[in-house]
Amino acid sequence: MELSNNPREFYQARVEQILESTLPIQKPNYLSEAMRYSVLGGGKRIRAILVYATGEALEIKAETLDSSAAAIEMLHAYSLVHDDLPCMDDDKLRRGKPTTHIAFTQATAVLAGDALQTSAFEILTKPIDGVCAENQLKILNILAIASGVNGMVKGQAIDLAAVGETISEPELEEMHLNKTGALIKASVLMASYCTDITNSVKADAQRIKLADYAMAIGLAFQVQDDILDIQSDTQTLGKQQGADIAAGKPTYPSIIGMDAAKKKLFNLHEKALNSLKEFGHEADLLREIADFIVKRIA
Amino acid sequence: MELSNNPREFYQARVEQILESTLPIQKPNYLSEAMRYSVLGGGKRIRAILVYATGEALEIKAETLDSSAAAIEMLHAYSLVHDDLPCMDDDKLRRGKPTTHIAFTQATAVLAGDALQTSAFEILTKPIDGVCAENQLKILNILAIASGVNGMVKGQAIDLAAVGETISEPELEEMHLNKTGALIKASVLMASYCTDITNSVKADAQRIKLADYAMAIGLAFQVQDDILDIQSDTQTLGKQQGADIAAGKPTYPSIIGMDAAKKKLFNLHEKALNSLKEFGHEADLLREIADFIVKRIA
Repeated sequence: MELSNNPREFYQARVEQILESTLPIQKPNYLSEAMRYSVLGGGKRIRAILVYATGEALEIKAETLDSSAAAIEMLHAYSLVHDDLPCMDDDKLRRGKPTTHIAFTQATAVLAGDALQTSAFEILTKPIDGVCAENQLKILNILAIASGVNGMVKGQAIDLAAVGETISEPELEEMHLNKTGALIKASVLMASYCTDITNSVKADAQRIKLADYAMAIGLAFQVQDDILDIQSDTQTLGKQQGADIAAGKPTYPSIIGMDAAKKKLFNLHEKALNSLKEFGHEADLLREIADFIVKRIA
Repeated sequence: MELSNNPREFYQARVEQILESTLPIQKPNYLSEAMRYSVLGGGKRIRAILVYATGEALEIKAETLDSSAAAIEMLHAYSLVHDDLPCMDDDKLRRGKPTTHIAFTQATAVLAGDALQTSAFEILTKPIDGVCAENQLKILNILAIASGVNGMVKGQAIDLAAVGETISEPELEEMHLNKTGALIKASVLMASYCTDITNSVKADAQRIKLADYAMAIGLAFQVQDDILDIQSDTQTLGKQQGADIAAGKPTYPSIIGMDAAKKKLFNLHEKALNSLKEFGHEADLLREIADFIVKRIA
């Protein structure tokens, strides 16, 4: 594979290789094929890139970050497979391809999602060179809390309950902080524990700034998603344009209006960059990700 | 709650209390209520009792085992909720109650199962008094491997693919060793790592015997399940009698005949007890569980 000079593309390719080797085809083939279909060859890999970018900011080697990067992408992929199910959001297109339950069966999609969640935790239970066992448990703890009933699944549950309902902006924000924000924040925090140093006051102070950055870009990502759902098209998005509106889902433009949504996006971008002001050039990739998130067209 | 003198009932009540306090009702209520509905107030708790019984055999305190016991029951409950879904086994009755997707909705059942899996890992990421971080990672590793694409989910995938097919006894055995055997073996192995001792030759030798015991009772459990599916009744079972046969699922009686199935059950019971012959009276509860598994009527 040719490696890109663009650091985002470089890390995108890197995590793809890790995922590819972590999920071999094995019996029963249809299950591992569905897992690979769900997680390989697509996606922006924002969460994995955030892991590596945080590693750059903290001068942690990429090898030390690989399992965290792969784990968070498997976790994210599982959530997409289950969210797309007919009983959930009933989506047929994802990353420009038929969703897993369309390409396989509903039963296979449930199982593949289940196994991807397990694999995400499994990969983080193996010894990681340069990370002490205490920090590794902390990494697992961050991923678990961000994914479950106090994080991502909570956000999806609020989302399902909100379809067709009128909700306020703070309620919408709480939904997104859980549904997408929790894993994005987990990406930077997991990376920050990929070290064998424990009990460092400096590291804890950096973590607070990194978490602020992540919360801002996590929400910005969602605001831009809502804007694109209205202003982009299906081919560019790789998923159905207007799907959220059609499903009666509350979005930023529908609740606060398009102008206010764009203003919010601008402010969140500023906030993200401000959170990084104590970091030097080693945090430039984190800054570039903040730029990318607000300027992306798909 | 009145505590029973019967050690199985004692530990059953103990893990119920841990689960109850681990899964409080919280917003959005329907999600945590569905999780509690799925995991509380029912089930034989064989896996949790095995954790505590292994702890007795190795002289490990119950407090040290609580998180492993609760984790394995949450993991098991998640698998039941998803296996019961209409797109999977389409079961309407479980532990004498409507299955989760009947009592709630399919979407809620998917999410509650997802979150129960996450909670199982989460509870094991918190520090455990008396267990070093290295062993705790090993406990998480055992649970992850037993649950995923090389364990429980693999077994369910083989099971789904086998419906209506003619399979051999070795294929049936491979399915069960994964589908139920993996978690039962994990129960005893997780308990064996609930200590701060690493690299013990004696402990490793004991683990081999405990794993042999667990594989035998895990398979015995399934053979008896297949026998009960034919010879018991719906009220006693708490689930639909004859459901496996009706669904065209391969069972021991259908593949090797009822007499051979009963003979197999007897031999597995013998094998389980033989695996424990180097243990003294401290392993009596493990022996009693082997007896219970072959003699149970539900």
